[in-house]
Amino acid sequence: MPTTTPPTPSPTTSGVSAEYAELRTLLREAATIGSIGSLLGWDQETYMPPAASAHRGDQAALVARLHHERATSPRLGELIAACEARASLMADPATAANVREMRRDYDLATKLPTELVSELARVGSLAQEAWKEARARSDFQHYVPRLTELIGLVRRKAQCLGTPKGANGAQGELYDALLDEYEPGMTAARIETIFTPLRQRLAPFIAEVAASKAAVDRTVLEIEVPPAKQEAFARTVLHAMRFDMTAGRLDTTTHPFCSGMAPGDTRLTFRYSKDGFLEPLYGVMHEAGHGLYEQGLPKDEHFGEPLGESVSLGIHESQSRMWENFVGRSRAFWEWARPHAREVFGPVMDRFSADTMFRAANIVNPSFIRVEADETTYNLHIMLRFQIERAIIAGQLAVKDIPGEWNSLVEQYLGLKVPDDRRGCLQDVHWSFGAFGYFSTYTLGNLYAGQLWETINQQIPGLDAQLASGDFGPLKEWLNTNIHRHGKRYRAEELCRNITGHPLSADALMRHLEGKIRPIYGI
Amino acid sequence: MPTTTPPTPSPTTSGVSAEYAELRTLLREAATIGSIGSLLGWDQETYMPPAASAHRGDQAALVARLHHERATSPRLGELIAACEARASLMADPATAANVREMRRDYDLATKLPTELVSELARVGSLAQEAWKEARARSDFQHYVPRLTELIGLVRRKAQCLGTPKGANGAQGELYDALLDEYEPGMTAARIETIFTPLRQRLAPFIAEVAASKAAVDRTVLEIEVPPAKQEAFARTVLHAMRFDMTAGRLDTTTHPFCSGMAPGDTRLTFRYSKDGFLEPLYGVMHEAGHGLYEQGLPKDEHFGEPLGESVSLGIHESQSRMWENFVGRSRAFWEWARPHAREVFGPVMDRFSADTMFRAANIVNPSFIRVEADETTYNLHIMLRFQIERAIIAGQLAVKDIPGEWNSLVEQYLGLKVPDDRRGCLQDVHWSFGAFGYFSTYTLGNLYAGQLWETINQQIPGLDAQLASGDFGPLKEWLNTNIHRHGKRYRAEELCRNITGHPLSADALMRHLEGKIRPIYGI
Repeated sequence: MPTTTPPTPSPTTSGVSAEYAELRTLLREAATIGSIGSLLGWDQETYMPPAASAHRGDQAALVARLHHERATSPRLGELIAACEARASLMADPATAANVREMRRDYDLATKLPTELVSELARVGSLAQEAWKEARARSDFQHYVPRLTELIGLVRRKAQCLGTPKGANGAQGELYDALLDEYEPGMTAARIETIFTPLRQRLAPFIAEVAASKAAVDRTVLEIEVPPAKQEAFARTVLHAMRFDMTAGRLDTTTHPFCSGMAPGDTRLTFRYSKDGFLEPLYGVMHEAGHGLYEQGLPKDEHFGEPLGESVSLGIHESQSRMWENFVGRSRAFWEWARPHAREVFGPVMDRFSADTMFRAANIVNPSFIRVEADETTYNLHIMLRFQIERAIIAGQLAVKDIPGEWNSLVEQYLGLKVPDDRRGCLQDVHWSFGAFGYFSTYTLGNLYAGQLWETINQQIPGLDAQLASGDFGPLKEWLNTNIHRHGKRYRAEELCRNITGHPLSADALMRHLEGKIRPIYGI
Repeated sequence: MPTTTPPTPSPTTSGVSAEYAELRTLLREAATIGSIGSLLGWDQETYMPPAASAHRGDQAALVARLHHERATSPRLGELIAACEARASLMADPATAANVREMRRDYDLATKLPTELVSELARVGSLAQEAWKEARARSDFQHYVPRLTELIGLVRRKAQCLGTPKGANGAQGELYDALLDEYEPGMTAARIETIFTPLRQRLAPFIAEVAASKAAVDRTVLEIEVPPAKQEAFARTVLHAMRFDMTAGRLDTTTHPFCSGMAPGDTRLTFRYSKDGFLEPLYGVMHEAGHGLYEQGLPKDEHFGEPLGESVSLGIHESQSRMWENFVGRSRAFWEWARPHAREVFGPVMDRFSADTMFRAANIVNPSFIRVEADETTYNLHIMLRFQIERAIIAGQLAVKDIPGEWNSLVEQYLGLKVPDDRRGCLQDVHWSFGAFGYFSTYTLGNLYAGQLWETINQQIPGLDAQLASGDFGPLKEWLNTNIHRHGKRYRAEELCRNITGHPLSADALMRHLEGKIRPIYGI
């Protein structure tokens, strides 16, 4: 009878423990089921014929059930406990980290009662419908009853997960349990200590930019280029980024995404734009940043284990944002990219110099919609969501009062008056499926990227010249060596301290933004 | 917890039996797992990056194991037995047929010892390697040891499956157990009564064609047309055939295939050719014939049950061959298709009339390679394989003597001297993975198609005129109504008799071939 290939034991673990070996085999099988679920999801977004969707739901539900059975099996719990008790095994730091994170995953998977998981899925589905309807009518109040019901369940979920103690040993708040799911170890109090100074520097900086008289040429954002050429240029950039196409793909979807579905199988997607090629380009660089992380994880040896997985959503996002914003929106990048763009797009590019491209890619333009926001204002969109989420989970803000709070924060941070809920608190899908605590990871990603970028520039001599010549290899290898290969061995902040020597702060990101934007706007 | 959607009970079965309902649910779940395996297979042939292949093997093996566990679960056996014992349930003929075929599938799945299944897989894998090597060297003797070992296992398999009693109550031969797997109820003796007269008429007919002085214009087989145009023309034909693209797809692969993987999801593939567009066209019509069958099966109600599955490989092949040969190689088809080909391919088509296309599509040309054979000579390739397989399994032919027997039969049937084993008995992959008994279903498909075609022409008035105007709807609907919607309710020969009023014979196919070919060659 066919079985899955057992993992090759690493030198540090072989012969040490039969329990550890069995644990790894069980986790690899669960992950194999998970990887099948990922293929079902990818196919659904790319090539599945529409009439297949009902059965695809059955397939996905079955795979989710098979995965859940394995992720919560009592045998897994026994094996983790047995490994924890074996001092010789835990003496190896990598193994100890692996078991530590297996424990975390197992506890997270088993803490929620089945009934609550079903209710969250059921009400989440209804809330998504209500959200769609409310957004179409731009009427938040239509959404209030379902969202209130869902938030009640999310609070119950947070209670079940339990609030970890903070670094100072103090009991955290309920919201921390939700943050912790996406960003292990992160707390609301810790985020506040970083977000508050960021906001205090960012909001006046944006006001300063807005007040400047400088006009940045945005013509290139509006030229129309054929989809096939947009894709050809995206592939040129992917190639330069060393995204491995023998272990990955690029396809077209409505919304771009990256699925690091399995060992040797990381698939990116791409969306054409009718307005210029920059949005698709940065979309693909963003997804390829995620993709390089997935390709850099040691999945051959550790597929299914924490040592083969990414650290957190925040660190994952740091990779995508670094390629999108720190590389892709740099002057050096455009020195390399502009001649290639000329080659692909033809004479239409003649009037745009590398400098024009660089400036156009860095226009600061406060706007209502998060997903359309520029690099600089983006973080303010996140911070207001963080504040609102935190207040809701703490019971300090009523659901019906969200629009008022939202609009007031947008005015305060971005200097804009929200015209309607559709362009305000109804714009994002996240809350409608119960994802509270997720948004912060986007700005954490920017912050990690900023702080890592300063260290990278110290550690890779001549990085700027390399980028300007299209030699992205040293950067990619630095990321492989310093971040990707560790899997989940270190928690996010620990990894950041190990690499940069400092705890996470707003300083590096602000230096990056001000250093780039001030000269463009002459301020 | 998510579960698969339970099937909607049909009016004839609702409330009759809790066991029957549970049985259907279990089978639907097993089929859902099977459908996931099909997606893995499809993706592997179409879009999977090469580096993913090792993990794809793990995924496929895991899915195969999960499927096998369900297909052989003791609970399934208990439920089938309980249904068989319930007279009120079995009084409904459709239900009785459903349970009859569930019993057959369950017995087939449980009769083989796990150890034998593993051995077949292991030796089959080695035999495939040996076959590739032997074919590359055109040296059958290199292949003999592995093939001998494999045939030993295949004989053991046949013994485990058991030889069903023939229609006359006499015990059949060992080979019947293998035939029965692909074509339920078929025996070697029965095939012989049909194949022998076919051969006796076909071999001299082909000799007559070969002796004719007529030269058929084959220029169109050699024109080069761009891949995109070949695909565009294929899509035009698929559309006319009413293949439902909202419930299916067309992609490109090295070898064309059809995967009716799930309800609402039937995927075809296509291969471009550098030599003319006819081979790709007939390839796609062939696969679309399979595809229309898959789309016509009542999968919404009966997915996972015999009533939602095809009758046999022979009947499946009758559908593909009917569209490929009886429709696609007809003069009427080319009256409709030729202007469309002109539209897609441009002025290169100007020198080819509908009549020229019809004639070029029906050239008779005895050749060595089965998959390149024309409609007329194809069946002789099958018949010699049938004779050799039967003799091997009966122990009347030694493996080492296959080349001599092969070459002698090719000379006898096709009038050709086989120059080497590569173009002789090493050309097909089938035996190397233990598929003995499979080949016959190809000619059974041609025979069923021929016999059905005569009835169809009686029952659809003006069919020829419809085809000539591109109105393929009535034919497709006739097939839906008379064949597809029944699923496995009737065995192949029973279905054939129900529809045509006669047991299967060589007569109709010979009338079809002679009626078409004689005028072309003026004989």
